[in-house]
Amino acid sequence: MTNEAELINRIRRAIPSRPRGILRLGIGDDAAVLGVPEGLRVPRRHSARWILTSDSFLESRHFLVDRHPPHAVGYKALARALSDAGAMGAIPKVFLLNLALPLELTGTWLAQFLKGMARAARGARVILAGGDISQSRSVAIFIALLGEVPVGKAVLRSGAHAGDGLFVSGTLGAAQLGLETIFKSKTQLPRVLRDKILLRHLYPNPRLELGLWLAKHKLVSAMIDTSDGFSTDLARLCRASRIGARVWSAALPVVSIPSKLRRRVPSPHELALHGGEDYELLFAVPPKYIHRIPGTFKGVPISQVGTFVRRREIQLLEANGDTSVLQPLGWDHFS
Amino acid sequence: MTNEAELINRIRRAIPSRPRGILRLGIGDDAAVLGVPEGLRVPRRHSARWILTSDSFLESRHFLVDRHPPHAVGYKALARALSDAGAMGAIPKVFLLNLALPLELTGTWLAQFLKGMARAARGARVILAGGDISQSRSVAIFIALLGEVPVGKAVLRSGAHAGDGLFVSGTLGAAQLGLETIFKSKTQLPRVLRDKILLRHLYPNPRLELGLWLAKHKLVSAMIDTSDGFSTDLARLCRASRIGARVWSAALPVVSIPSKLRRRVPSPHELALHGGEDYELLFAVPPKYIHRIPGTFKGVPISQVGTFVRRREIQLLEANGDTSVLQPLGWDHFS
Repeated sequence: MTNEAELINRIRRAIPSRPRGILRLGIGDDAAVLGVPEGLRVPRRHSARWILTSDSFLESRHFLVDRHPPHAVGYKALARALSDAGAMGAIPKVFLLNLALPLELTGTWLAQFLKGMARAARGARVILAGGDISQSRSVAIFIALLGEVPVGKAVLRSGAHAGDGLFVSGTLGAAQLGLETIFKSKTQLPRVLRDKILLRHLYPNPRLELGLWLAKHKLVSAMIDTSDGFSTDLARLCRASRIGARVWSAALPVVSIPSKLRRRVPSPHELALHGGEDYELLFAVPPKYIHRIPGTFKGVPISQVGTFVRRREIQLLEANGDTSVLQPLGWDHFS
Repeated sequence: MTNEAELINRIRRAIPSRPRGILRLGIGDDAAVLGVPEGLRVPRRHSARWILTSDSFLESRHFLVDRHPPHAVGYKALARALSDAGAMGAIPKVFLLNLALPLELTGTWLAQFLKGMARAARGARVILAGGDISQSRSVAIFIALLGEVPVGKAVLRSGAHAGDGLFVSGTLGAAQLGLETIFKSKTQLPRVLRDKILLRHLYPNPRLELGLWLAKHKLVSAMIDTSDGFSTDLARLCRASRIGARVWSAALPVVSIPSKLRRRVPSPHELALHGGEDYELLFAVPPKYIHRIPGTFKGVPISQVGTFVRRREIQLLEANGDTSVLQPLGWDHFS
């Protein structure tokens, strides 16, 4: 079976990718970390200053032209990359857009797409610096994003220790509930409720301010964004940090499901554990800083949902004391 | 009619793209130019230090899976972006790869593709720093590339003046001849000759050393790479510099066409003027430096093929004294 991790390993072995020179951190985190150009003498605390990341957003794979409004496609294509910057504790600065699309979408579809992308760009104050546009049979959107790490040190996936608290921002499973709702168009839901459910799927909010605040106050030892689902992204952070975790099931900030949808979608806990595209921050907090993490940050709830442990396994602890191994059942880009 | 320039203008108007902060030069050149991060006090001559560019390479649009060897596809996908860095007088440093491909190509096709890309990466000593891989119905390759400008000043398209000499490296039309040959598979050509013709189409040589040398010695006032054809790229440089040019037809370093192919492909001058993907450097040299431009640089011929003029029109001057307006008939990515 071919999966994403295996393919990335093949790429990494085939193409020179070991960090050297200006590249301080390469493949394997939310973004690459770059130092300042060689020959530029700056204080050592400024030695790792920029992050560089890129993201693909593909028709049929990540969105459907006949189901997803072009405005939301444009917004989300950029928001996904912004979220990666947030998870490094970086401030996104400039981006490149490579856009491929069929000729028949260059009218109102493209106009709406650009409006949506402009909204995401203005929200994060990033500037479009280049890219290209090509004709193709299906829509493919690629964003490359460069950001600045103001405290001189990016937050990696690999810094968590056993004993650190496991935290997550926002609500988990909300985006997946929106995706499921899009495909259950026959379900009669009041318009206002339906729009509210779709919002988190169509217009995710990259947690840039929270990521920056956590990094600036050096409260976190490791961080990742939940792009592919809590279970999958937690497994990635644990693997990078060479530790395991215990997740408190009852503490998970699960999405609430309207009664009309309950029989038609997975359970709140299924959605929370494995649903993709929430773009929340999942982070590790050393014990001495746990009391400094607020319950909400600018209106966004923050929850401790477990602890990191030495044993390299992720366990789910139910309220009744039962435990089970939590498998990464989120999104694999190549499964 | 929709064309690339019009679409780029729509994008530019819709999304914030005016350079500010670390972005010194945005949309409209071979690459964006970045200064060092804010708050980092460095001498003013270091104020513009990095370039950032990205490039799409798409199945059906730019290559065919059943005609182009995967090794060459991998090589060329990266070489195209490297050429953009060369045209800025920059040293490419790190790149990101976003790859979308069908499941059935993840075996030997992908292995060969990666080998080809590794060859281009080693040749330019660039490091793969990240990216992603996704499943899709057709192959789409996106490269984002970050480079360093060692002399602190990137060479732009916009610096040419009337009176400057118009120069070009290498041979023009060679890559297009290779492309035409691929589609004329019935023509009986000796294997060695056929391979030689295809080489320039499949494995273009980004002129990194030449670009860097010209920039370092400050011999050029403007530069671009001939990715879309001499006529089209010259028009772009002239537009950016707000001038025109006179091209000496007889001085063009045209490709030589084997007799067996002559009736089946455009004339050498047609190929040289409008053929795409040569990835040679086209540059402007102030009069006082023209004598310092060598006839060859490390084996690559360099030819003066005209001069830049005040009148904003590109004229083609034939050996017999006839003149005509040279239309940009090269490659438009959205025509």
